[in-house]
Amino acid sequence: MVNTGSTPVTVIGLGAMGQALAEAFLNAGHPTTVWNRTAARAEPLVAKGAVRAETVAEAVTAAPLIVVCVLDYAAVHGLLDPVADELSGRALVNLTNGTAQEARTTAEWAAELGAEYVDGGIMAIPPTIGTPASAILYSGSQQAFDTHSTVLDLLGTSKFLGTDAGLAALHDLALLGAMYGMFAGAFTAMAMVGTEKVAAADFTDELLVPWLNSMVAVLPLLAAEADSGEEVSEERKLVERVALTNIIDTAKAQGVAANLVNPIQAIKDNT
Amino acid sequence: MVNTGSTPVTVIGLGAMGQALAEAFLNAGHPTTVWNRTAARAEPLVAKGAVRAETVAEAVTAAPLIVVCVLDYAAVHGLLDPVADELSGRALVNLTNGTAQEARTTAEWAAELGAEYVDGGIMAIPPTIGTPASAILYSGSQQAFDTHSTVLDLLGTSKFLGTDAGLAALHDLALLGAMYGMFAGAFTAMAMVGTEKVAAADFTDELLVPWLNSMVAVLPLLAAEADSGEEVSEERKLVERVALTNIIDTAKAQGVAANLVNPIQAIKDNT
Repeated sequence: MVNTGSTPVTVIGLGAMGQALAEAFLNAGHPTTVWNRTAARAEPLVAKGAVRAETVAEAVTAAPLIVVCVLDYAAVHGLLDPVADELSGRALVNLTNGTAQEARTTAEWAAELGAEYVDGGIMAIPPTIGTPASAILYSGSQQAFDTHSTVLDLLGTSKFLGTDAGLAALHDLALLGAMYGMFAGAFTAMAMVGTEKVAAADFTDELLVPWLNSMVAVLPLLAAEADSGEEVSEERKLVERVALTNIIDTAKAQGVAANLVNPIQAIKDNT
Repeated sequence: MVNTGSTPVTVIGLGAMGQALAEAFLNAGHPTTVWNRTAARAEPLVAKGAVRAETVAEAVTAAPLIVVCVLDYAAVHGLLDPVADELSGRALVNLTNGTAQEARTTAEWAAELGAEYVDGGIMAIPPTIGTPASAILYSGSQQAFDTHSTVLDLLGTSKFLGTDAGLAALHDLALLGAMYGMFAGAFTAMAMVGTEKVAAADFTDELLVPWLNSMVAVLPLLAAEADSGEEVSEERKLVERVALTNIIDTAKAQGVAANLVNPIQAIKDNT
């Protein structure tokens, strides 16, 4: 257990992710106040030493550093607008998933209130929070980030992307989009081999994971190509078109929906 | 240099992949005959010791093991139908990308001719052929695979999936579909951060590759969930819906086409 100093921290929102965030602070012996609309979700954290605030106002005034992780920005403002007067002089670190534009608008709102605003994107799933597998992207107030980076580092590897508060959300959503593309392809693949009674777990362990790892390793080459603006060879384009047609035809023949692959084919056909 | 015995091998089709296949045989000191419609593509291989056949018939009769890697199955049959009488008693290993159904039909055609047919799917890019990063899936004639597996192992790790000749293509296309999903997500991500002048190479090296590696590592858990038929929690469904809407809204606001992510949202909305 590492004690990171006496600066108290408040966590607002105790969904699966908010609970993991509060737990990471508590595991480091950090004074932690929590609040959640459904108060019962605070109980496991109180058992580990958290203080449960009765109201949002009590939660906000309990600490100079307030971490918010709720469903969306409407929920952020629904909770914090009524206690806006209490935010002045505090650091507000918003780890709620939102658009880049919502982050920028919320940064302006916080600035008018005299609060230091940092927007964040969590690149982790709740069980990996506080482990080296967790990375968290931040952007907005450099001063607030620098002041509290030791505490924020308890959640995972912190990366500050710049003072434009929208940058963390932009990168977060770009990475989530890449993940969903990979997952969509992976689930389509599991469904395709499933038509011949191959178990998804066997296929995934033996073939899919090693294959995707080797293809993720190719991405830096493709990114360098994208930056260079170099044309893909006609041979490669032709080979890709044939492969995409074969994927879609085989998926259909095996009775699997190919609607995740169709738009990729449409793009390749237009290049 | 490892000499794998005197059984000659023939490679028909010298695109980027066919050249890499022939080179792997030659690097192992294996007697190799090559044929390509555009004969000039054989020259670098002849310089390494390959014999260039003047005709497809000459190529086929030069070896008991014939490896074919051309654009599609129409090309396979365009080349081999005229020399069908020469195929009896030989092993035909077809590494051309095709549908599972095409593989099955070609296996029947080969069986009628008295040839042993093995269909294969190459899970590698040409530069990795012959290295541990290359895996090749096979299905069809178990006898032909067993007889020639030492030679085929020169191309990468061989995996025999069963006697249904369509299985290699089915697995190959499933894996390629997963790759295209991942690539499509990755390119959308690069385009999104590119709108704020972030270089694709920097983003890919620092954030995208580590993130996708950590998410590929989650796939076995998701596959086990899929096999169990267990329901995803309502909280996770809600969080995913919000994130997908945010991805699409931010892509649009930044001027990036979201048509690769849209079908994923449609699926999540219906679950």
